Amino acid sequence: MPDDNWLSAIKFDEDGLVPAIAQDRDSGRVLMVGWMNRQSLATTVESGLATYWSRSRAALWRKGEQSGHFQQVHEVQLDCDGDVLILKITQGGGIACHTGRESCFFRILRDGEWVTVDPVIRDPQEIYGDD
Amino acid sequence: MPDDNWLSAIKFDEDGLVPAIAQDRDSGRVLMVGWMNRQSLATTVESGLATYWSRSRAALWRKGEQSGHFQQVHEVQLDCDGDVLILKITQGGGIACHTGRESCFFRILRDGEWVTVDPVIRDPQEIYGDD
Repeated sequence: MPDDNWLSAIKFDEDGLVPAIAQDRDSGRVLMVGWMNRQSLATTVESGLATYWSRSRAALWRKGEQSGHFQQVHEVQLDCDGDVLILKITQGGGIACHTGRESCFFRILRDGEWVTVDPVIRDPQEIYGDD
Repeated sequence: MPDDNWLSAIKFDEDGLVPAIAQDRDSGRVLMVGWMNRQSLATTVESGLATYWSRSRAALWRKGEQSGHFQQVHEVQLDCDGDVLILKITQGGGIACHTGRESCFFRILRDGEWVTVDPVIRDPQEIYGDD
């Protein structure tokens, strides 16, 4: 029986989920936030590849399974309340966002407007195809 | 009437909340994650001081109101889905965590155990008193 005591320190919400912040290990940039349940976190730690829970598809989702942009996980951090995770990662392809940008956080509030500050590195249609 | 169109880009959840990641502007370290509703975010942007929604107290919570450790907000970022915020901040007192540590993310998973890697900078009893 695998020792998974460490999982019991995590306070999953009423849906069995916690937010997981994917942060570039080298630059410190926050690239995306996904959700994890117990199984996706265990899979992430076992495999070393970030595996989230897709709330829209209600399924395990290994980041990169469609795009090829996997996330190699170097470290997992837990906060004081046990209800938020940080993954220190290396982002395959340098693209975390489904819009083809490095980070999902590409909008900054300036004078009451959201300004897009990051370029699209690769056309999402090229990454994901037409479907 | 103030122009708050920018607020309508945000997809608050069924409880009217979004997670807000407080990240040190200079070091890039993630210090804490709080929750914000529409009012707390508007107050944050107006005042320049991070103001969360306390789910346990069901009240606006200006970070630092008890500890004196306010968070000066330099920038607000929004993700592609419009449901997660990043605040680039300067942390007053250098302590974001109620345990007296710099960051709430002071535990790292190592060989199946959570290891505390950050020192307590100031005793929480000194910060918050006995009550």
